[in-house]
Amino acid sequence: MMVIMKPGHTGQQFEDVMNRIREVGLDGHPIVGVERTVIGVVGMDRLHPELADDLEVMPGVEATVKISSPYKLSSREFNPTDTIVDVNGVKIGEGTVTIMAGPCAVESEEQCMSAARAVAARGASILRGGAFKPRTSPYGFRGLEEDGLKILAQARAETGLPVVTEVMSESMVGVVAKYADILQIGTRNAQNFFLLEEAALTHKPILLKRGMSSSVQDWLLAAEYILNKGNRNIILCERGIRTFETATRNTMDINAIPLIKEMSHLPIIADPSHGTGKMKLVGPVGVGMVAAGADGLILEVHPNPEHALCDGAQSLTFDAFSALMATTARVAAAVGKRMQTEVAALA
Amino acid sequence: MMVIMKPGHTGQQFEDVMNRIREVGLDGHPIVGVERTVIGVVGMDRLHPELADDLEVMPGVEATVKISSPYKLSSREFNPTDTIVDVNGVKIGEGTVTIMAGPCAVESEEQCMSAARAVAARGASILRGGAFKPRTSPYGFRGLEEDGLKILAQARAETGLPVVTEVMSESMVGVVAKYADILQIGTRNAQNFFLLEEAALTHKPILLKRGMSSSVQDWLLAAEYILNKGNRNIILCERGIRTFETATRNTMDINAIPLIKEMSHLPIIADPSHGTGKMKLVGPVGVGMVAAGADGLILEVHPNPEHALCDGAQSLTFDAFSALMATTARVAAAVGKRMQTEVAALA
Amino acid sequence: MMVIMKPGHTGQQFEDVMNRIREVGLDGHPIVGVERTVIGVVGMDRLHPELADDLEVMPGVEATVKISSPYKLSSREFNPTDTIVDVNGVKIGEGTVTIMAGPCAVESEEQCMSAARAVAARGASILRGGAFKPRTSPYGFRGLEEDGLKILAQARAETGLPVVTEVMSESMVGVVAKYADILQIGTRNAQNFFLLEEAALTHKPILLKRGMSSSVQDWLLAAEYILNKGNRNIILCERGIRTFETATRNTMDINAIPLIKEMSHLPIIADPSHGTGKMKLVGPVGVGMVAAGADGLILEVHPNPEHALCDGAQSLTFDAFSALMATTARVAAAVGKRMQTEVAALA
Amino acid sequence: MMVIMKPGHTGQQFEDVMNRIREVGLDGHPIVGVERTVIGVVGMDRLHPELADDLEVMPGVEATVKISSPYKLSSREFNPTDTIVDVNGVKIGEGTVTIMAGPCAVESEEQCMSAARAVAARGASILRGGAFKPRTSPYGFRGLEEDGLKILAQARAETGLPVVTEVMSESMVGVVAKYADILQIGTRNAQNFFLLEEAALTHKPILLKRGMSSSVQDWLLAAEYILNKGNRNIILCERGIRTFETATRNTMDINAIPLIKEMSHLPIIADPSHGTGKMKLVGPVGVGMVAAGADGLILEVHPNPEHALCDGAQSLTFDAFSALMATTARVAAAVGKRMQTEVAALA
Repeated sequence: MMVIMKPGHTGQQFEDVMNRIREVGLDGHPIVGVERTVIGVVGMDRLHPELADDLEVMPGVEATVKISSPYKLSSREFNPTDTIVDVNGVKIGEGTVTIMAGPCAVESEEQCMSAARAVAARGASILRGGAFKPRTSPYGFRGLEEDGLKILAQARAETGLPVVTEVMSESMVGVVAKYADILQIGTRNAQNFFLLEEAALTHKPILLKRGMSSSVQDWLLAAEYILNKGNRNIILCERGIRTFETATRNTMDINAIPLIKEMSHLPIIADPSHGTGKMKLVGPVGVGMVAAGADGLILEVHPNPEHALCDGAQSLTFDAFSALMATTARVAAAVGKRMQTEVAALA
Repeated sequence: MMVIMKPGHTGQQFEDVMNRIREVGLDGHPIVGVERTVIGVVGMDRLHPELADDLEVMPGVEATVKISSPYKLSSREFNPTDTIVDVNGVKIGEGTVTIMAGPCAVESEEQCMSAARAVAARGASILRGGAFKPRTSPYGFRGLEEDGLKILAQARAETGLPVVTEVMSESMVGVVAKYADILQIGTRNAQNFFLLEEAALTHKPILLKRGMSSSVQDWLLAAEYILNKGNRNIILCERGIRTFETATRNTMDINAIPLIKEMSHLPIIADPSHGTGKMKLVGPVGVGMVAAGADGLILEVHPNPEHALCDGAQSLTFDAFSALMATTARVAAAVGKRMQTEVAALA
Repeated sequence: MMVIMKPGHTGQQFEDVMNRIREVGLDGHPIVGVERTVIGVVGMDRLHPELADDLEVMPGVEATVKISSPYKLSSREFNPTDTIVDVNGVKIGEGTVTIMAGPCAVESEEQCMSAARAVAARGASILRGGAFKPRTSPYGFRGLEEDGLKILAQARAETGLPVVTEVMSESMVGVVAKYADILQIGTRNAQNFFLLEEAALTHKPILLKRGMSSSVQDWLLAAEYILNKGNRNIILCERGIRTFETATRNTMDINAIPLIKEMSHLPIIADPSHGTGKMKLVGPVGVGMVAAGADGLILEVHPNPEHALCDGAQSLTFDAFSALMATTARVAAAVGKRMQTEVAALA
Repeated sequence: MMVIMKPGHTGQQFEDVMNRIREVGLDGHPIVGVERTVIGVVGMDRLHPELADDLEVMPGVEATVKISSPYKLSSREFNPTDTIVDVNGVKIGEGTVTIMAGPCAVESEEQCMSAARAVAARGASILRGGAFKPRTSPYGFRGLEEDGLKILAQARAETGLPVVTEVMSESMVGVVAKYADILQIGTRNAQNFFLLEEAALTHKPILLKRGMSSSVQDWLLAAEYILNKGNRNIILCERGIRTFETATRNTMDINAIPLIKEMSHLPIIADPSHGTGKMKLVGPVGVGMVAAGADGLILEVHPNPEHALCDGAQSLTFDAFSALMATTARVAAAVGKRMQTEVAALA
């Protein structure tokens, strides 16, 4: 951290700042310039996140500037090697493109089994499906709950695909972990720190969606909550952020893919279904995210989108999913990767 | 809802849309124009939030447009009379300006009691203080937890001020409700729907902060989760939204104050401490929000901001709080209100 | 500026950075910490805005952090005394609240004269009205052009109110300056640097609206273009920024008022008509901005808003304007100011 | 347009609204529902953009909702066939990927010729370079002006590449058009309507960058200004929008690529240099945009990025550009396109 003193500060103000820094066991190194004096704070200021705030209100101080990144365990500096998350043998982040696909919500055994078989046959490696659904309005369909989890488990038994599903509440971590192979933390819970910690303690892999207003740094700090509880099996998922643009549901942040690869060792996938909210954009944006370096995609696929109980407008039909898988495989090859599951028929 | 058909749609496509609308028990009224055909959907489409998505993916449909607001119980249309929330006799929303003040976090008995006495003497009506603190980084100070709640209860006993404090987790609703008079839902949990419902069931008053990326409509829908569980004691709190501006911690949305007054019957207060993140801006922005119609302010006040364990940069000293109370009283009078608690010394 | 070296940089990389800094005539002061080495760059780095970019791509460098603010002439540090802009005797920024009011667009002599007389009688000090209108669509009404300017001049002759009107193009600076007393630069031209400089050279007072995506810093840098040409008569105008919230036309940034007062010596007014886009919000938000410290308001007033050729939805009727003036006067008094023009009838 | 009446409106209010609609020559079709009455306005309401505002302030009206898109000439509905822009034989939008490359600013003959030769040899089809530079601060390097244009013309003479360069001011349209093959309108001038029209009248191809706070609809309306003057040679350029994320210079909106393809017939390219602001992200994001359907890329390439007078942090070295061209060619092939200029050595 750097402490920037105001022009015209007094000697006493300078000493008070130096003393406040020493109080928490850090050192201050002054640099006196033509226009400004700046004090470099040396030491583990990451462990004193309140110090910057405190210094900023002291007389004579203009501002403080953070230098060390506030996250640690999620940083590439801490762990230069890519983390590979192993989900029952499906390895995410090993240089392949992993496809997670299935319906937004589990609506019935028939709908879910139909979707599961379809995505398995077309090259998905993981089955997605919501049993508990976060809905902006209390009047929306909120999921089949534990019955939905049982249907997902049945689909796994038949297709062999591991299951990812959302957990929305600490009190349900147990029941969801009983059925799911990957626990998904949704965008509205991206900074629900108690839920992050409770999920971490299951030691299951965690799919951590970006908060719709989380900066990349906020997101890595959310991952830090999970890592700090000893669970390293984190898959980040870019799903779009909230901006002034209303023509799409969210603004997909493609920059975040190579940026996360620079900053962190964790694998990252993309969710073009929520990132766009429009069926026709899902394919082009999905392959774009893979070209930019995403380790996979998570996609909403529904046997009959115009009768979906949630997110019909962004769900792919089976045919659209097939076509997207073929393009994704070609784009993956163009950037030196292969599909996690290769399907002969796609060649 | 209006369904806008594409130019050049077929008669069959039109019939399919009409049938899909009838399937859920609603009626469609076609309007044929020069450039477009539009179908007005008549009935309670609020109860079929998935219908718009489903229609949008049907062939021949260009878009759908919602007309009825998706919230109901929180709307002024549903309840034209202002809701007044009574907290142990302190009435919020009755045409007065209620001040909630105290430290960001309860750090010690001494710090909390000192702040509580100071704000009580200067005209606060409610004591605020955090026992559980949501921190972006896991390495920040996370609160004294139940010990903090006990200190708050002790401060209430001495000063007579009711206590508002944050509940961050469903599993802690019980313990927080045991000590607190108002349960605060923080910005990161603004769409944690299980927590909203659990808190609602205590029937305690709830201070519902706006999510940092919640639109006004999202926010009223979050309130709808609480109302839908039978708890009408909601106080909305504008605390700034996330925008591109980084010179302040958040962008305080002053427009939201009169807008909420138009749309809803619920009382609304403002939090200029989090809304600005800078001590020097708290006062001017606070009185601005009162002038715009806020029913109160929630303010961070600390005996010694430069040693605060959280949010020191935005906490007011006792003297700054005194000055702000005097200005607030004058501004309240200018817009035809009085302070909830009037302090002789301020005159 | 601070240059943050990567952990594990080489000695040669360090030397290269030090040499690059010396090349432009500045000095580098290294600080060696436990985790990082940082180099403080001492000197007028404001004059070398490209240096930070250049250093950031050098091997061994992680990032650079600016310390001095990049603007100079607009800063309070450069000029601690408040600038007062004198417009034909109307002094803006002298501790009073100045009201600029009139129609969005000049539509006819009758409409403009009627509005001018009405606002003059109710306490406005400046007449506003658009002769050239920036319209998002080419199919909107684009103004009466020079005929509109003549009508404004006629209204000034009758009412005595100085006139503020927008100039949208360098080629029209001459003609607009011939008639107007204050040249308004609109939000869409807030970074049209050639226009800023051309307008500056008239030495007329300039009303500089904030760009809808300009940070406060960008805005002060735009003012810097005008100041740098020797024109100090600048009035800043907060008119709302673009955010994810769509319930209002823009999000009025109340924080910017006291923030600008901290950072700059220039006067600042607020435009609640564009900042909200809704007639019913104009009043509450306007008085809120005054309470927060704005030196004035600019307001759209129309004899017949439901027949306005532009911005009818946010224009005040004469009666609504009267009521707002009365409230504004009371709020101004509450924060220690008086109205620029006091109207007996308002007392 | 739909006019939504308030619950409880009177018959007279309804009649007033119907009359106001008829006044401008349109028809109103009422739909009476359980909760609401809605009036469908039939006719060319695009030609009466003020009507919605006017209706919204009439008693009994709750809101209006636009249905027809407000742009026309730029819409795919108006012109279903893709527009192909021919620049001296280089055809943009014909199903190929066109690369425009060169330095941010022309700094000297040597620098510009070196970059021009390098990009020509590596497969660029168009040379970019700034002679007039928009700089947020007046203290930045603002370009060589006409001398820069002459150097660009010389580079074209030697390499055969057509030249794209920015025009920032109406008064310079003439001089820039004298040398340039494509006139670029930058992000800060994206809604400088006089400049758009002046540039349109040259009938040269125009590269229209998206405003950093322009929605896709605003952007198409800006194109409409050019089309409305009879110039159809428009190339749209996505260059990132302004959001809360500060880790990158802008947020590249990948969704806009397929969305524009749906909405409009105009070709669209992407600028990953400005869209990311970070050299290491340019390549991954660039190929991502091509995979999503962009008709080309515009890239900053500099012989020596660490001595660039502008935007060094985002400029590619010649080697990085070579590598990116090879990957781009493979990704283009994966989505069924070929490079505009194919370079044998890349194979």
